[in-house]
Amino acid sequence: MFKINENYQKLPGSYLFSTIAKKVSAYTKANPEKEIIRLGIGDVTQPLAPAVIEAMHKAVDEMGNADSFRGYAPDLGYEFLRNAIAEHDYRSRGCDISPEEIFVSDGAKSDSANIQEIFGPDNRIAVCDPVYPVYVDSNVMAGRTGVYDAQAGTWSNVIYMPCTMENNFVPEFPKETPDLIYLCLPNNPTGTTITRTQLQEWVDYANQVGAVIIYDAAYEAYISEPEVAHSIYECQGAKTCAIELKSYSKNAGFTGVRLGYTVVPRELKCGEVSLNHMWARRHGTKFNGAPYIVQRAGEATYSPEGKAQLKEQVAYYMKNAAAIKNGLKEAGYTVFGGVNAPYIWLKTPEQMTSWEFFDYLLEKANVVGTPGAGFGPSGEGYFRLTAFGSYENTLAALERIKKL
Amino acid sequence: MFKINENYQKLPGSYLFSTIAKKVSAYTKANPEKEIIRLGIGDVTQPLAPAVIEAMHKAVDEMGNADSFRGYAPDLGYEFLRNAIAEHDYRSRGCDISPEEIFVSDGAKSDSANIQEIFGPDNRIAVCDPVYPVYVDSNVMAGRTGVYDAQAGTWSNVIYMPCTMENNFVPEFPKETPDLIYLCLPNNPTGTTITRTQLQEWVDYANQVGAVIIYDAAYEAYISEPEVAHSIYECQGAKTCAIELKSYSKNAGFTGVRLGYTVVPRELKCGEVSLNHMWARRHGTKFNGAPYIVQRAGEATYSPEGKAQLKEQVAYYMKNAAAIKNGLKEAGYTVFGGVNAPYIWLKTPEQMTSWEFFDYLLEKANVVGTPGAGFGPSGEGYFRLTAFGSYENTLAALERIKKL
Repeated sequence: MFKINENYQKLPGSYLFSTIAKKVSAYTKANPEKEIIRLGIGDVTQPLAPAVIEAMHKAVDEMGNADSFRGYAPDLGYEFLRNAIAEHDYRSRGCDISPEEIFVSDGAKSDSANIQEIFGPDNRIAVCDPVYPVYVDSNVMAGRTGVYDAQAGTWSNVIYMPCTMENNFVPEFPKETPDLIYLCLPNNPTGTTITRTQLQEWVDYANQVGAVIIYDAAYEAYISEPEVAHSIYECQGAKTCAIELKSYSKNAGFTGVRLGYTVVPRELKCGEVSLNHMWARRHGTKFNGAPYIVQRAGEATYSPEGKAQLKEQVAYYMKNAAAIKNGLKEAGYTVFGGVNAPYIWLKTPEQMTSWEFFDYLLEKANVVGTPGAGFGPSGEGYFRLTAFGSYENTLAALERIKKL
Repeated sequence: MFKINENYQKLPGSYLFSTIAKKVSAYTKANPEKEIIRLGIGDVTQPLAPAVIEAMHKAVDEMGNADSFRGYAPDLGYEFLRNAIAEHDYRSRGCDISPEEIFVSDGAKSDSANIQEIFGPDNRIAVCDPVYPVYVDSNVMAGRTGVYDAQAGTWSNVIYMPCTMENNFVPEFPKETPDLIYLCLPNNPTGTTITRTQLQEWVDYANQVGAVIIYDAAYEAYISEPEVAHSIYECQGAKTCAIELKSYSKNAGFTGVRLGYTVVPRELKCGEVSLNHMWARRHGTKFNGAPYIVQRAGEATYSPEGKAQLKEQVAYYMKNAAAIKNGLKEAGYTVFGGVNAPYIWLKTPEQMTSWEFFDYLLEKANVVGTPGAGFGPSGEGYFRLTAFGSYENTLAALERIKKL
């Protein structure tokens, strides 16, 4: 008789955003006349940039013509895209990353969930708390996290690094030594980040204790302050200890297009074993490339027109972020983030739990946000709003919140 | 210090098609004047059907407009596509499969590699020999296959079901009881298949011993004989023991577009645990949906125009298959397949090993095929040619082979 992966049974409840979707759906069904404004899930609303649309039409036409038709893509991604990434995202910033170290994928969610596979079952992971749920859940499924304490909302074999008002949302080196350290900077969900100097300390720490940093740079395009690193490879020694994940979802609005990449430097080794080779083997065996049309769309984000158009999109969302931050401050809220990231992290008022505040906001203002507790125990008492709505909806949501 | 997944070190050599690509690349470099004809990897050559191209252009335009822009897709796929699949691929054939049992993905390669994750580490897998390498390699990476015997080319903990001339390429029930049974029918690489009655025996066997059949139906569109099932759910009782994988790569030429789906019936359970729920949880946690544009492309394959155009494409490739089969027979080869599948499986001449025959064909005829031994020990002495080339190239390749 076949046996299931028992680790799945350990997962508490369902994935955060599925739960929110169900709650909103139930409310909408019961109150069909109410107009909901969604500032919850980190999904974009602006259409794709004209340069991207043009590139996709061209690629679609190529696929309709025998002479220019493309079948299976190269395992690691087309060279035209990997070269553009190496040039524009790395070399232009002084980071020595070559196309052979870049693996094109269908998005950073898949990569951040799959990357743990090349590590053994007995690695100890460290995560910020609050944290993007995929890092922990993918390790739960792999049996790496121990026993769940439903009361505390923590796993016995996970090292949590609390990020709260008290430490200015800067994670501290844990007391126990981790093997894999997940860092998302600028941070989802808190919208805060750390300086290049602080990141260098993490790189030094990882090299010293023999840990790998899994660095999720999905929100890099929103960085506005010069002292914040755009890539972990801006730090000395990062190539021997860090894997970087990138997404086109937030900088180019590709949430429904699906494109991302992962950098695994050649210098990153465990004894003689190259992690770059291991990840290449995983790609070759378990993945068949991102669509040609989508890779051409990715390439278009690096053209002069594409770059200019994306800059405008990011500016549009950051105008929302500033409006939310200032509006909430005026309304008396304590708020964080929104300067180097499209997320605003607020302290819930009057000691409400974050799910209480979720229900309160949904029912009284018809605004959907994300409860901080959904991201981990240290997220309790906080709440996330995203800047990804339209400007009009963002202002409308603020008016409703101010009236409460 | 972090630890790697040691199972990766057990994998012998590189993925079959990467090895072939390297061999061909080396030959081309040394002989730049030679014109290579590729009948090796199962990649299509005909452009996408006009109905698909039209649907993609329309979807690209939608993504460029704020009112019709789509962000994250629903976890399991858009309803428009899942409804079309349920209707056209199942209900029209009398199979009781609902949209809730269908999970849209970026292709059958990912699904066939990932599906093992929802099963425990101590399941015993059974595979046909020869076999599509991904089934075994994904289980090696998960540590389920035991020790590799390089001499025999087999894993100590895998049950092999030889499919050769001697048993007419029909797998027999194994002596040891398996937990997971991989069946690809019509078969890659042999191009052969079994009847609906024979498949029913496998379903009965799986239900009896408590095994799950992972049924890869990627080549279903090529079935020409009425006694061959298009879906395992045509068999009584399949919903309690079978997961079906489907691809748009071969019926619609989507190898570079990336779309597939997996059916996990609600009735498929381990005790009280629903495998449908487990796979939904995996999708929600580790995947973010296939691109909107690609899902619209998939929907277009079910329109009357789309269906008619795909039928023509399949007929085009099957004309190639018939030409290869008859041409090789005339040249004195012993050949199989090519009737319900786009693959021709031939016995290598003069006791050549299949890699010897690969080199011989590459060097003497500049034709690339796939050595049978790359698919498993019982593939030794056989060789695969695909019908996915252009008709002109297929005839040219045959002329070259006949001249040898």
